[in-house]
Amino acid sequence: MTNEPIFDIAHLGHIELLTPKPEESLRFFVDVMGMTESGRAGSSVFLRGFDDYERYSLKLTGAKTSGLGHMAFRTRSPQALERRAEALAGSGFDVGWTDGDVGQGKTFVCRDPDGHVVELYYETEWYTPPAELKPALKNQAQRYPARGVSVRRLDHFNCLAADIRTNRQFFEQYLGFRLTEQIVLDDGTEAGMWLTATNKSYDFAYTLDRTGTRGRFHHLTYAVDCREDVLRAADIFLENGVYIETGPHKHAVQQTFFLYVYEPGGNRVEIANAGARLILAPDWKPIVWSEAERKKGQAWGLKTIESFHTYGTPPIETGNPT
Amino acid sequence: MTNEPIFDIAHLGHIELLTPKPEESLRFFVDVMGMTESGRAGSSVFLRGFDDYERYSLKLTGAKTSGLGHMAFRTRSPQALERRAEALAGSGFDVGWTDGDVGQGKTFVCRDPDGHVVELYYETEWYTPPAELKPALKNQAQRYPARGVSVRRLDHFNCLAADIRTNRQFFEQYLGFRLTEQIVLDDGTEAGMWLTATNKSYDFAYTLDRTGTRGRFHHLTYAVDCREDVLRAADIFLENGVYIETGPHKHAVQQTFFLYVYEPGGNRVEIANAGARLILAPDWKPIVWSEAERKKGQAWGLKTIESFHTYGTPPIETGNPT
Amino acid sequence: MTNEPIFDIAHLGHIELLTPKPEESLRFFVDVMGMTESGRAGSSVFLRGFDDYERYSLKLTGAKTSGLGHMAFRTRSPQALERRAEALAGSGFDVGWTDGDVGQGKTFVCRDPDGHVVELYYETEWYTPPAELKPALKNQAQRYPARGVSVRRLDHFNCLAADIRTNRQFFEQYLGFRLTEQIVLDDGTEAGMWLTATNKSYDFAYTLDRTGTRGRFHHLTYAVDCREDVLRAADIFLENGVYIETGPHKHAVQQTFFLYVYEPGGNRVEIANAGARLILAPDWKPIVWSEAERKKGQAWGLKTIESFHTYGTPPIETGNPT
Amino acid sequence: MTNEPIFDIAHLGHIELLTPKPEESLRFFVDVMGMTESGRAGSSVFLRGFDDYERYSLKLTGAKTSGLGHMAFRTRSPQALERRAEALAGSGFDVGWTDGDVGQGKTFVCRDPDGHVVELYYETEWYTPPAELKPALKNQAQRYPARGVSVRRLDHFNCLAADIRTNRQFFEQYLGFRLTEQIVLDDGTEAGMWLTATNKSYDFAYTLDRTGTRGRFHHLTYAVDCREDVLRAADIFLENGVYIETGPHKHAVQQTFFLYVYEPGGNRVEIANAGARLILAPDWKPIVWSEAERKKGQAWGLKTIESFHTYGTPPIETGNPT
Repeated sequence: MTNEPIFDIAHLGHIELLTPKPEESLRFFVDVMGMTESGRAGSSVFLRGFDDYERYSLKLTGAKTSGLGHMAFRTRSPQALERRAEALAGSGFDVGWTDGDVGQGKTFVCRDPDGHVVELYYETEWYTPPAELKPALKNQAQRYPARGVSVRRLDHFNCLAADIRTNRQFFEQYLGFRLTEQIVLDDGTEAGMWLTATNKSYDFAYTLDRTGTRGRFHHLTYAVDCREDVLRAADIFLENGVYIETGPHKHAVQQTFFLYVYEPGGNRVEIANAGARLILAPDWKPIVWSEAERKKGQAWGLKTIESFHTYGTPPIETGNPT
Repeated sequence: MTNEPIFDIAHLGHIELLTPKPEESLRFFVDVMGMTESGRAGSSVFLRGFDDYERYSLKLTGAKTSGLGHMAFRTRSPQALERRAEALAGSGFDVGWTDGDVGQGKTFVCRDPDGHVVELYYETEWYTPPAELKPALKNQAQRYPARGVSVRRLDHFNCLAADIRTNRQFFEQYLGFRLTEQIVLDDGTEAGMWLTATNKSYDFAYTLDRTGTRGRFHHLTYAVDCREDVLRAADIFLENGVYIETGPHKHAVQQTFFLYVYEPGGNRVEIANAGARLILAPDWKPIVWSEAERKKGQAWGLKTIESFHTYGTPPIETGNPT
Repeated sequence: MTNEPIFDIAHLGHIELLTPKPEESLRFFVDVMGMTESGRAGSSVFLRGFDDYERYSLKLTGAKTSGLGHMAFRTRSPQALERRAEALAGSGFDVGWTDGDVGQGKTFVCRDPDGHVVELYYETEWYTPPAELKPALKNQAQRYPARGVSVRRLDHFNCLAADIRTNRQFFEQYLGFRLTEQIVLDDGTEAGMWLTATNKSYDFAYTLDRTGTRGRFHHLTYAVDCREDVLRAADIFLENGVYIETGPHKHAVQQTFFLYVYEPGGNRVEIANAGARLILAPDWKPIVWSEAERKKGQAWGLKTIESFHTYGTPPIETGNPT
Repeated sequence: MTNEPIFDIAHLGHIELLTPKPEESLRFFVDVMGMTESGRAGSSVFLRGFDDYERYSLKLTGAKTSGLGHMAFRTRSPQALERRAEALAGSGFDVGWTDGDVGQGKTFVCRDPDGHVVELYYETEWYTPPAELKPALKNQAQRYPARGVSVRRLDHFNCLAADIRTNRQFFEQYLGFRLTEQIVLDDGTEAGMWLTATNKSYDFAYTLDRTGTRGRFHHLTYAVDCREDVLRAADIFLENGVYIETGPHKHAVQQTFFLYVYEPGGNRVEIANAGARLILAPDWKPIVWSEAERKKGQAWGLKTIESFHTYGTPPIETGNPT
């Protein structure tokens, strides 16, 4: 009989992003990305896509450098949170309980083998829009802003790591994520992994840090509804002088239709369509991409831009909040 | 503490559709919908969208009338299948075990309170495309056909039922489906329900049969990637003389961008975008639409066409396979 | 030998729209349609789509009622303007020369047989965007606003008329417009006409006023790039409480993908894709739609909404500027 | 007073493309591009997009190499054809009258300064679809095929030339084309030109042949309706093993959303959206791109691929029909 999987993580909840230029970063996320500010605390501003059901999906924090503050996953239930905390206790990855971020309940903090900070929580504040942001349809979290890119919701993030295999095992064994695609080099080294706790084909990815540095961040991705929206985003970034690193184009891996830009604080941000491809099979066999296959570039032949392999925001230690 | 949910159903696997005009229906699904034939048995032809991972998602069966043969859900594991069978045993809804449909393992059969046949299975044959249908990207089940509508995958179905509440309770209690949206009339009668076992906002819907008849079928839906694909489908149906009942337009409920046609055998078929809106919250509070709200028509004001409330294909008893 | 056509009209330049609610209408065009204010004079505000090359394409004038102030066509050259004025002089349709509207040179004014005011001009002020509206690409008139619908340019307008045939002959003979499609009833009555001076399949349309009233206005249309943009516009109108009369759907006539709303002043405004279908043939044979064909409704079967035949804004006499 | 322009050319009618692999090229245009065969003569097959109003827009001719056979423009009237013939007679560019290609009347042949063959004709056979290709809407030339890319119509072509300026002057002075955009290098050399006889922003382009060779061909472009159609085309080319040279991406010049592939015979073929941007101004001032501006790459930052500058199909002399 198959060993039954862990179902304790519900989904990616939010990302804390560090920025050395908090005002300019905020203007980028509000005016260009079309996100909504939904709170402030200390040097942090909380932001949301128009259909994120929680109060926020992005915590933007002023800091000495760019980079990842932490990633936060919501569990499926209070019991699920306890079970994960118990599993992690004494593992060496556990950091411990906190009172939780703004709008969220008690939170269990740990670190992945590469050092990225992972937060787990269950209790959360559902977003209640003010009158002027009430949507016309009650099954939508907030009014469609029709300002800038107007992203729908947080989709996924991507970290760099010095050792993909140990990170994969960490997320599989302690948190129950499932591997949907991966890159394995000719010598057997795992060079990329895409994991999910949902029917989305991935909730996050880790790719190999060629510099061997630990704890670096690659990008954060917000979802729009279709490929035309990604093209429109490219037009909007162009008009706003935002640096477009690469795209729009289609990844071979996961078939994501991507567009990568740098926000003013130096973090790479992706706009992607999301949802057309779902992983419904409970026993999905991970797709393994070889070194030769990856050298072919992206789906329609675009060569992967060099900076995509080298540019990453600093590890958390360097980027402590000011 | 919250009562933890049942996670035993993985997803909708296939639908058996009855047709009194099997040849014409087959031509519709292959030539106009762009589906692929992947098997035959008896008076049935098996068909698939290009990204359905299982061998088929539609079993098209020659019969005296149109209508639903059965719905089939795949469980998350063999144990999950056993658990559901045990739960149903002696409930009055259970029919019993069969050897299963083509390409599938042992199957537990039951009937919902309205009489629709429900099949549960775990073992399934993954689709292996012949050489000429191998996709360029290995994370796709089959080559994109670029013929007719070229639907990606089975998305959901909709049954009519004489009593929505009892059917909702059946699917919630015995199979663990979660209610995401519903219609409740002023007198408290439940008139529509949308349930899911996945992060899709619904895997199926039931709406009230105004005639009081039991076991009727409303429609079957295949997913395309974006709204533009639905519009293109409308152009294709127009060119092929397919009767368009209503749409393309946007439902207020679930915000589905819909297009309804009748296939030659008389079954209502929907093309819809799917995936932009996902239900990620593990504790989603069902959206309740009132009678007054539903009278407003669809999202952009289109009045619901009368036949949408009255036209349904016959109950299964009438539609026994020939 | 073919009689060679008149090439003196270059294109539709602008429309003067009357509104009894000038402030609310202005907010609609700026905030919801995403247009840019580019001047004021008296009770008029001048507005533009982001890729209109002239300073404005809409003159919005406070008045007692809604309706058409005038339509204005730009000629291909100064000589062309003189030729048209000469042709019209003494025809009974001529009104005479004026100094022209804001940003435009000397203007010849006439009235069509139904009484609508027609202005002809050649000299015009090209739009020069202020620094903050400079586009990233120099072949675009203005920065893409990414605010509301963000219409590209004025596309066409539609008037009601008591007698279509005489109006068609007027525009053909005096101004050189070419008929591309028309509706002819069983009794030979012309009920609709679509005319063009460009490769667009129409620059304006006239449809029969069932009430027999003269000089009424039906709608004004702004172009977006694709059908997905029209759907997005519907979402934006919904969120902003704008009344959607009908659409999005595809007209059989001209295959326009349409969406009709009422702006706060009561004028019907259309958002349409434009450009996919061009009339390149210099000897295009007009498409004639019969009464029976028109009764079939729109391309995908939508029945034409009754108000579409009855709701028109008042004739100019009633709607004189305050 | 402005010197009034020549209006004698109506539009680009067809392109004769040479191919050393006629069978494979034909399969590409029919099965992958979704075009329709509409005639054969000698070693040529005639092909059309579903909304080309003439019988064909592509003459595909078996030959020793790939390349351009000729370009053919339709005039606005018989008189216009005579006027152009008279203007060219004795110019040194004139070749003389022929009976014309299949389905077309008497034709005046000339060569541009670079040696490309230019044909002018007025009489033409309008396409009459066989019963199975009749469209549902009578304002469309042929049924939408829903097979492969399903291109709508011929849009433009691009030649290489050793001297852009003399070619520009030829097309402006003898044929009345208008320059809408151009590239001028720092030393004053014209390196690219985009000309039109319609409201399309260009009917053809010439770019500088870096090798100094004369008479070479760069690409042929078919139009689809929107950018999403171009992306879908990329998916289809990928599935069919067609070599994608570059794109989809947006050109800075003309803002064309492009996708370039090589058909089996070696000719570069482009799929582009067309129509959103129209040139309506009769006095359009050509957009001039400098050397520095062009070095920035395409609109969203994609660097122009090297083969785009070097790969061209041979001059006509080399490619004489077999």
